[in-house]
Amino acid sequence: MDIGHYLNQKRDEVDRFLEKVVPAATMPPTILHESMRYSLFAGGKRVRPILAMAAAEAVGHCPPALWPVACSLELIHTYSLIHDDLPAMDNDDYRRGKLTNHKVYGNAMAILAGDALLTLAFELCSQRELLNGLEPAGQVRIVYELAVGSGHVGMVGGQVFDIQAENQDIDMATLQRIHRHKTGMLIRAAVRMGAIVAGATPAQLTALTGYAEEVGLAFQVADDVLNVTGTREELGKNANTDAQRGKKTYPTFLGVDGARTFADECVTRAIGHLTSFETKADPLRELATYITARKN
Amino acid sequence: MDIGHYLNQKRDEVDRFLEKVVPAATMPPTILHESMRYSLFAGGKRVRPILAMAAAEAVGHCPPALWPVACSLELIHTYSLIHDDLPAMDNDDYRRGKLTNHKVYGNAMAILAGDALLTLAFELCSQRELLNGLEPAGQVRIVYELAVGSGHVGMVGGQVFDIQAENQDIDMATLQRIHRHKTGMLIRAAVRMGAIVAGATPAQLTALTGYAEEVGLAFQVADDVLNVTGTREELGKNANTDAQRGKKTYPTFLGVDGARTFADECVTRAIGHLTSFETKADPLRELATYITARKN
Repeated sequence: MDIGHYLNQKRDEVDRFLEKVVPAATMPPTILHESMRYSLFAGGKRVRPILAMAAAEAVGHCPPALWPVACSLELIHTYSLIHDDLPAMDNDDYRRGKLTNHKVYGNAMAILAGDALLTLAFELCSQRELLNGLEPAGQVRIVYELAVGSGHVGMVGGQVFDIQAENQDIDMATLQRIHRHKTGMLIRAAVRMGAIVAGATPAQLTALTGYAEEVGLAFQVADDVLNVTGTREELGKNANTDAQRGKKTYPTFLGVDGARTFADECVTRAIGHLTSFETKADPLRELATYITARKN
Repeated sequence: MDIGHYLNQKRDEVDRFLEKVVPAATMPPTILHESMRYSLFAGGKRVRPILAMAAAEAVGHCPPALWPVACSLELIHTYSLIHDDLPAMDNDDYRRGKLTNHKVYGNAMAILAGDALLTLAFELCSQRELLNGLEPAGQVRIVYELAVGSGHVGMVGGQVFDIQAENQDIDMATLQRIHRHKTGMLIRAAVRMGAIVAGATPAQLTALTGYAEEVGLAFQVADDVLNVTGTREELGKNANTDAQRGKKTYPTFLGVDGARTFADECVTRAIGHLTSFETKADPLRELATYITARKN
């Protein structure tokens, strides 16, 4: 399969759906909707929605409910970037080659746009007209997966672990804990949500969760490597910022080559979980490889 | 009925349930959970959960699911206070007589504690073991009500309208629009969520929604009056801050006495919606009166 073509096609599907369900910038309060859209349509790769969609394809069933469920993950991801970039947090001026949300709309609106995107994610996952093909018990499971993956034991918790580790002499186990929460839990939720929408059996859900955990780790290791090896042009933001901030990353512990090898091993293990899905899991296999080979 | 006794009893029930379901401050990341708990247990009146519970009593059915549903409203309310108090927003140092969250834990942790409380609200409303007595289709309706009431067309949207109106020469219709969104929609959601958990008929839901809209308005008018007439001791925060900020409020348009009369008229209309519930709606009737007569 042509993973480049697959990614483009899925990204377009996600963008079209988001365009339809996120309020127009002409709808009051206009400045809020404009600010939400500014970051949502800033060139994101849509990795989490695409993982959800590929997981549903592996199970072999993609009802209409898959789109709102998949897109809710992008709303969560986008809100987390807006809040992370704030002066009170990472104080970043650029993201994906564009000014960050608060540099354009101010800190107050950036906080509120993040809050609204986070809340809209749960609105999408509970709006009956959007959820055809998924019965109510499944809808509730989706909401729960999203809340756990993005909340105090998931993404937000990981962000706190990360802040606590700043300028600390942490070991690699602590580093892994940070990322298992900060990025891993939402990627895990993405794959599980896609699988649940598709009606996965418990055995299928377990296999896909195993895949997701390895991919989540590989994703973060690759991100850390890119921060060292990428250029400002490739990344759309400043490069080598982790080292400048005295932040410990996988390359700190393993070196760049060692970190690359570690990511490759995660990908191999991830793919090992997919045997029973046969060719229907090819997109998930290709995605795992793509995630470690990407340039931004 | 003795509304003081009723309020104390319900507030204790809410506090006990929150104590049980909100992670202990000893659970990692400890600083996050400590910060969430700091604001959550800072002496809130629990008006929104109590409105949800009283609405369920009016319908005549209070299954175990009522407690997580009611308490989710307090998590949303608390997160909104934490974010509103931030330097980027209202820059308040005190709330309910205590230092605001960011004054104790810093701006980054206050943003994250808010995000985590918001997300936890949806976790509570989708955690199967907590939702006995409410079938999945009802659970999804609850999530939707909460998302709409607190999101871009609800509370967050109202906050944006409010910011946009700062130092503007707004009229009373604009003021009402601000508050219909900023406080009204979440109070509306509270009453509707309680009614839905209790299995309200469509006619009952319509009547209770009418009640909630009037009470929400009365609540805000009373809040504006208190800002003028209350002392720092009564309010637990600085008094007369609206006028100092050049903020237009109901007393600006109607005078203090006129605003009080207006609030009383809202309460009368609110109670008018409750006839068919007979004595089961007594708590809702008393609550409406209490809300306009309170001192903080």
